[in-house]
Amino acid sequence: MYDVVVVGAGFAGSVLARKAAEANRKVLVIEKRAHIGGNAYDEYQQDGILIHKYGPHIFHTNERKVWDFISRFTEWYLYEHKVLAAIEGTRVPIPFNFNTLYELFPSTMANRIESLLLETFEFGSKIPILQLKRTSDKELKNLAEYIYRYVFLGYTVKQWGCKPEELDENVTARIPIHLSRDNRYFQDQYQGLPQSGYTKMFEKMLDHKNIHIMLNTPLHDVIQINHETKQAYLLDSITLNCLIYTGKIDEFFNYKFGSLPYRSLDFTFETLPMEHYQELGQVNYPNNDDFTRITEYKYLTGQNNNNVTTISKEYPVAHKDGFNTPYYPIPKQANSELLERYSKEALQYKSVHFIGRLAEYKYYNMDTVVSKALNLSETLFK
Amino acid sequence: MYDVVVVGAGFAGSVLARKAAEANRKVLVIEKRAHIGGNAYDEYQQDGILIHKYGPHIFHTNERKVWDFISRFTEWYLYEHKVLAAIEGTRVPIPFNFNTLYELFPSTMANRIESLLLETFEFGSKIPILQLKRTSDKELKNLAEYIYRYVFLGYTVKQWGCKPEELDENVTARIPIHLSRDNRYFQDQYQGLPQSGYTKMFEKMLDHKNIHIMLNTPLHDVIQINHETKQAYLLDSITLNCLIYTGKIDEFFNYKFGSLPYRSLDFTFETLPMEHYQELGQVNYPNNDDFTRITEYKYLTGQNNNNVTTISKEYPVAHKDGFNTPYYPIPKQANSELLERYSKEALQYKSVHFIGRLAEYKYYNMDTVVSKALNLSETLFK
Ligand SMILES: Cc1cc2nc3c(=O)[nH]c(=O)nc-3n(C[C@H](O)[C@H](O)[C@H](O)COP(=O)(O)OP(=O)(O)OC[C@H]3O[C@@H](n4cnc5c(N)ncnc54)[C@H](O)[C@@H]3O)c2cc1C
Ligand SMILES: Cc1cc2nc3c(=O)[nH]c(=O)nc-3n(C[C@H](O)[C@H](O)[C@H](O)COP(=O)(O)OP(=O)(O)OC[C@H]3O[C@@H](n4cnc5c(N)ncnc54)[C@H](O)[C@@H]3O)c2cc1C
Repeated sequence: MYDVVVVGAGFAGSVLARKAAEANRKVLVIEKRAHIGGNAYDEYQQDGILIHKYGPHIFHTNERKVWDFISRFTEWYLYEHKVLAAIEGTRVPIPFNFNTLYELFPSTMANRIESLLLETFEFGSKIPILQLKRTSDKELKNLAEYIYRYVFLGYTVKQWGCKPEELDENVTARIPIHLSRDNRYFQDQYQGLPQSGYTKMFEKMLDHKNIHIMLNTPLHDVIQINHETKQAYLLDSITLNCLIYTGKIDEFFNYKFGSLPYRSLDFTFETLPMEHYQELGQVNYPNNDDFTRITEYKYLTGQNNNNVTTISKEYPVAHKDGFNTPYYPIPKQANSELLERYSKEALQYKSVHFIGRLAEYKYYNMDTVVSKALNLSETLFK
Repeated sequence: MYDVVVVGAGFAGSVLARKAAEANRKVLVIEKRAHIGGNAYDEYQQDGILIHKYGPHIFHTNERKVWDFISRFTEWYLYEHKVLAAIEGTRVPIPFNFNTLYELFPSTMANRIESLLLETFEFGSKIPILQLKRTSDKELKNLAEYIYRYVFLGYTVKQWGCKPEELDENVTARIPIHLSRDNRYFQDQYQGLPQSGYTKMFEKMLDHKNIHIMLNTPLHDVIQINHETKQAYLLDSITLNCLIYTGKIDEFFNYKFGSLPYRSLDFTFETLPMEHYQELGQVNYPNNDDFTRITEYKYLTGQNNNNVTTISKEYPVAHKDGFNTPYYPIPKQANSELLERYSKEALQYKSVHFIGRLAEYKYYNMDTVVSKALNLSETLFK
């Protein structure tokens, strides 16, 4: 009956469902939520503002193939994301760049640092602050220290609920300064938001005569997995030759080795009787308050026919299974090891393919997931 | 696996799915569209205006039981529908009442007619114009003639694409004049629109651990009917002991006796850069133009935080299977006879229950469908 069953209707699942359908496979998509789109799902508030239920999502990629594929299902609002961080009573562009430098420091000092940076590194490059710390120059060391403390430290502690030392080093290593005057948050060649929203884009992607969609349906309600034979069945009766699984990998195995921990987020949405709440789409609060950032959605979506605006405040919280959403895999050594055990197990299920942020327990941007899904589809549905 | 399979996620199907789930049945809802809600489905336009995709729906009922049931899944915006008709260069309240009388005719004349009406009929009553025609009074006969010609005739010809004579008599007989100053379109005790829209209300109704929803799934894709044994199967393998069918009855039987004809509608939606387009929610155009009415949704939904407004114009058109939506069963003798043949056939399918506007080929208001579904659920899921 079905050639392919896909669990999860986010980017990973939906791209694979579409590619399978176009390769003439009959596809059933199984999704536990009441909607498609995964974490990119957007919906209108009663006042008419389009918001992102699971946090602000900006699409950006350097992969032409990814952009072209998604563009089959949507027009784009060509938004380029910019972010300010509230630091020492002012709001400055981040990632840290020359504009930030001049806004935070007296101009003679900024001048000097700028020259120093350009003597040491190439204009336009992105330098991880760890690398900056390792230079011999005192002033650059101090700059690295400053950025670490005011831009990074507080945000990280809030975001992960722990000290940076407790996390994998590459998290700390990652934060760069950008030696340019480019205030954009991303430098990718293609950036934007689907003109009519992500959800409409997913509707179009999944609108194919070979695709059926099941909502409100958790995996284990309809799929039975025989862990002896490594074989999966639909409704106790239909043998599945190709199951694509984009849910949590530990859930697939009934948590038999234990749970892979996640960080979660609480979003509070407020609709305010004003044209705009802040000067651009996102302001980060690395140091004050309990939330990490405030997003104002009208900037992201380009909506402008409303007398009100909707913002969300984002509070990182511990993840509790069944109570809130597993958002971020926690980058710690012990978790990588646990993942390793599950991944090894997964390899034995020849007819099951694990893909996406939950199945791989890895933070991916949307475009990476699309890219991976397109690649997998090429092996599976020739 | 599933105790109950429901085809169609409109009012009929969703109410039955909910009641079955609450009676501890495992339920699968199968819907061919990409969304739940049937013809009551509403969605936001890109500018943030909530519209009714399949035409304006106002909920109204005198049945407390119906109102209470639906109220479990939504708050209400307590809207009372009022309609104007564009007649002879002015816009007057309909259904025709004393206000209409005074707006259309010189006051001495209106005065006289009013007295005549109140001498013959009771204040507050609703008198079909056919009855008015049959009175001995010349002036009342003329009034009936006037209403027939200016309010009814043009609208009916547009709506049905034929002369009133070609329709069942009760269609013509039905149009009443209301002997009151009540401009409301409905006099029911309970009236309103779901505060956050119909779709959200349906989401809540169907949000139950015992309910799975399948979208983009036409009946015959997943359900096989053996017309010899009168037995239905899911995915070729699961025997269905209780199938609730709310789709077209002729479709269920592969049109074996022929198609039951429907009238369809084309809606054109326009978003305009103004606070309001017209003075209230609905204006009818019985005589001019090709559309029958213009609906302005903000009045119906109570939205008021937008600088734009969305209207729809409604053009009645012939129904073509697979091309447009079957909206109105056509009230003609030949169709009743054809329906009779299907209904008789349907009775032989003991495990299949036919309910709703398509399965019964009958125009129902929403509340009637809810009422019928609640009643059926009481027999089925004790
Ligand atoms: C706060 C936040 C902001 C982000 N912002 C950006 C951004 O700006 N740009 C960017 O490129 N990326 C962003 N991302 C990353 C983006 O969300 C992911 O790349 C994307 O969601 C991954 O798609 P996916 O299909 O792997 O997972 P998901 O989108 O999570 O989809 C998985 C789907 O599977 C379903 N599912 C899970 N388990 C089961 C089960 N057992 N049974 C049935 N269904 C199941 C889920 O309900 C879900 O719908 C952000 C992530 C977060 C958390
Ligand atoms: C223009 C218009 C305006 C109206 N305004 C009002 C109003 O103001 N107030 C009021 O009370 N009533 C109004 N109604 C009536 C109202 O729409 C109906 O009472 C209501 O929709 C009936 O619900 P239902 O479940 O029987 O049918 P539907 O709402 O039509 O639901 C049937 C569902 O079954 C699905 N389906 C059909 N065939 C199949 C198949 N083969 N496989 C899978 N799925 C299938 C359909 O896609 C649909 O979602 C209006 C009707 C129209 C046409």
